[in-house]
Amino acid sequence: MKAVIITVGNEILKGRTVNTNFSYLGELLTYSGYDVVKGIIVRDNLNEISEAFREAFSTGDLIVSSGGLGPTYDDMTLDGFSRCFGLKLTKNPYAVDMILKKTGYMTPAREKMSLLPEGSEPLENRAGTAPGVYMEMSGKIIIIVPGVPGEVKSIMEGIKNRIKIKGFHYTDRSEDLHGVKESLIAPLIAELMKKYGDNAYIKTHPKIDDNGSPWVEVEVSSWGNNEEEIEKFADSILEQIKENAMQNNYK
Amino acid sequence: MKAVIITVGNEILKGRTVNTNFSYLGELLTYSGYDVVKGIIVRDNLNEISEAFREAFSTGDLIVSSGGLGPTYDDMTLDGFSRCFGLKLTKNPYAVDMILKKTGYMTPAREKMSLLPEGSEPLENRAGTAPGVYMEMSGKIIIIVPGVPGEVKSIMEGIKNRIKIKGFHYTDRSEDLHGVKESLIAPLIAELMKKYGDNAYIKTHPKIDDNGSPWVEVEVSSWGNNEEEIEKFADSILEQIKENAMQNNYK
Repeated sequence: MKAVIITVGNEILKGRTVNTNFSYLGELLTYSGYDVVKGIIVRDNLNEISEAFREAFSTGDLIVSSGGLGPTYDDMTLDGFSRCFGLKLTKNPYAVDMILKKTGYMTPAREKMSLLPEGSEPLENRAGTAPGVYMEMSGKIIIIVPGVPGEVKSIMEGIKNRIKIKGFHYTDRSEDLHGVKESLIAPLIAELMKKYGDNAYIKTHPKIDDNGSPWVEVEVSSWGNNEEEIEKFADSILEQIKENAMQNNYK
Repeated sequence: MKAVIITVGNEILKGRTVNTNFSYLGELLTYSGYDVVKGIIVRDNLNEISEAFREAFSTGDLIVSSGGLGPTYDDMTLDGFSRCFGLKLTKNPYAVDMILKKTGYMTPAREKMSLLPEGSEPLENRAGTAPGVYMEMSGKIIIIVPGVPGEVKSIMEGIKNRIKIKGFHYTDRSEDLHGVKESLIAPLIAELMKKYGDNAYIKTHPKIDDNGSPWVEVEVSSWGNNEEEIEKFADSILEQIKENAMQNNYK
């Protein structure tokens, strides 16, 4: 199952804000059983948001979008999403309840946050005012959350058991190989990936120590239905790399 | 002039690595005079990388891609780029020189890093081995750099004066408005954006303090050819917002 993550917000594109929502969502979806195959970052612009959903929908089985769900003029993610699929935004009574419980009274800006795409379901946001949005369409799941990291986490915590692919397990471990140069260990990694690549993934992350000497972090991940087996499998691959690195001189 | 940023790397999509290269590049390009209009994050996959460049080229005047430029089997950004535009990868003598100066001798994995798209120019990488790549095509600029943040910065520092749009200035300031709720200040911001939106941009960033009370950071940016004028313009807008927030009760 493929997942696509959309981020909406000029502040991300201008580099003013580091996209920690993306890494949080990427990790959550990976451990939930999805291949996160693409990220799309767009401006607070109606057409561009609409186009991002169209693009994501053509690829992903699950789409999560963060940002642009607040009360201000430039929060237009739900508008863009609705435009993409020809849906109307209608006042959602559950969303109204959630907002009133938080704030006590309505204002025009808060009314805006209670307008949800028809057929969608509001998701509780314990860390802020704007509810998240959950929707199923053509067998695909779309989740839309605000951009404030605490709110993203609060909403996703509430929904994560519903989206987790049953019986799926993912594991990931890594080892620092000090004194090992990435370009010298590269052929070994390529060979192991040929052998094990269907059920595991090996990646080297080149680093430089304080003295300017290169070293690599080796990451091994594996996935499948049997938790014990994939843990053992990933361990055994990492062990082979460590042994090989010790036997050879990769400096 | 529009810019598009591509990030290549499974580790970003899986949320293992926070995409700080993106925020660094976004800020650099914004201050260099570009509208960063889109970000595309793809896996270490030949077709998906190629498709990302095709997509970026259809929108951007400047494209910067980071990641996938090293010696390992899954570093395939230059392959993907070349496939997209029907270019050959050929051994670049300047790139060979750069790599030899760094490492002293060639290996097959290092040879790989000296293969550049025909017609491109290697960019010096003082922080690592793989040279960056600079290319002009149909009046557009393409820059390809590795994924290690120190290497991205080293290469971009060397090229930034060449890509800066002459005479362009950008400024950005912000103010914390404690005790102000975003949904209550939203109508004022919308009104000011209608008035000044052609040459300025106002964005509110909702925050929550330690006691759980909401407040907003207001950001005002402006751009143009006259540095002094845009600074004054941004100041005056921020001043209006502060005064208005003090006069009214936005709590």
